[in-house]
Amino acid sequence: MRNIKLTLEYDGTHFNGWQIQPSHKRTIQGEIEKALKAIFKKKIRLTGSGRTDSGVHALGQVANFKTTSSLSTAEILKALNANLPEDIVVLKAEEVTLKFHAQYSVKRKTYRYSILNRPTRSAVQRHFCLHVPHKLNLTAMRSEGRSLAGRQDFRSFMAMNPAERHTIKGKDTVRTISKLNIQKKGAYLYIELEANGFLYKMVRNIVGTLLAVGSGKLPKGSVRKILKEKNRMCAPATAPAKGLCLLKVNY
Amino acid sequence: MRNIKLTLEYDGTHFNGWQIQPSHKRTIQGEIEKALKAIFKKKIRLTGSGRTDSGVHALGQVANFKTTSSLSTAEILKALNANLPEDIVVLKAEEVTLKFHAQYSVKRKTYRYSILNRPTRSAVQRHFCLHVPHKLNLTAMRSEGRSLAGRQDFRSFMAMNPAERHTIKGKDTVRTISKLNIQKKGAYLYIELEANGFLYKMVRNIVGTLLAVGSGKLPKGSVRKILKEKNRMCAPATAPAKGLCLLKVNY
Repeated sequence: MRNIKLTLEYDGTHFNGWQIQPSHKRTIQGEIEKALKAIFKKKIRLTGSGRTDSGVHALGQVANFKTTSSLSTAEILKALNANLPEDIVVLKAEEVTLKFHAQYSVKRKTYRYSILNRPTRSAVQRHFCLHVPHKLNLTAMRSEGRSLAGRQDFRSFMAMNPAERHTIKGKDTVRTISKLNIQKKGAYLYIELEANGFLYKMVRNIVGTLLAVGSGKLPKGSVRKILKEKNRMCAPATAPAKGLCLLKVNY
Repeated sequence: MRNIKLTLEYDGTHFNGWQIQPSHKRTIQGEIEKALKAIFKKKIRLTGSGRTDSGVHALGQVANFKTTSSLSTAEILKALNANLPEDIVVLKAEEVTLKFHAQYSVKRKTYRYSILNRPTRSAVQRHFCLHVPHKLNLTAMRSEGRSLAGRQDFRSFMAMNPAERHTIKGKDTVRTISKLNIQKKGAYLYIELEANGFLYKMVRNIVGTLLAVGSGKLPKGSVRKILKEKNRMCAPATAPAKGLCLLKVNY
């Protein structure tokens, strides 16, 4: 048995997220498993580093699958890309030890959230950024953002995942954010977040809160207060999916 | 009568180019004239700085129209963007003198052609770049590119425009390229071209030739030779539309 690790790029716009669904909606996992079936002539289960929601993009998602095939990784890469739709591409296919598990072996993940901060929306980037027409206070966002760094309980930034409704109380919601950068490039703001793991919708909830800070809706010290509450009801609304991109998964 | 200058961004992917067509295909000019009609309740003719082909994008196309309306330019901008589809946006609306003509007053235009030069295609950028999987020789491309600079007869790089079939012999095909830069950023090559005007499909024909140079299909000195021939049949194939973007029009 061989274990194959894939590095993936996708445009999440026309997908119902990563995870295969019984309703046969178009998903990233579903499309890749379809391609694997076409190549290996049997059903192969693909394991992702984690789900991405509908509309979320990836430049470096990672997944793995097991096979007894003797195809080289170069041949697998080529065959997959020939069988995949144009909004998914396999950037790398590597053979890894059997112990490698795309989800359980994760050490760190990096996400980027893109905000277009100018009066007019964008036509070209419309699927890849959130448009905020009013001026955002970058200094305030950076200052409040610093309260999120390090090992903390991020329960206030976790959305209720319907599948976890019954286990949510006992869930370990402590994570370590090792990087939170807010960069300005022209009219764009990029919020980059690196952590050892993210709770359900945690990035988009953090971005939603930073946007409230940047818009003057939350006073200084709010982020620290929200963290302390350990209650999702205390943090502002979730930022839309289309601005989010999974940049990298480290193992 | 007032003269209004518009600066436009569009994603050309789902348009049949700029120019309105009798066949009622979806065009950029057509969509903007539709929005103008909805706002001003009468047919208004929009003049563009020039056509862009089907699939070509713009970050700074310019157009103008005349109106007797007393709406402020801020109101016109807002009303247009509210009436335009998401793949077109008006970035600026300014009142200019009646003499201003979006096409005849052009001093310089800048185009950018984006090439993804890596083994695998891109999912996210698929509509905005040409994918070239084999390694391109950047030094050769830059060296041959220098032969294109300055005031020259670009007849060899002009495509036959069916509408001009009868006038092509007498057509003035001399243009001045004031800038030709080839920049590498990660896996991307950007060819930026500035000129006082471009012949029909000139940018894409130049890019096609530079790609042939970078692929080792044309020896040193080829561009100079092709220019001298003054015959389209001597230059390599036209590069695909989707990599091209009209960046700026100067007046």
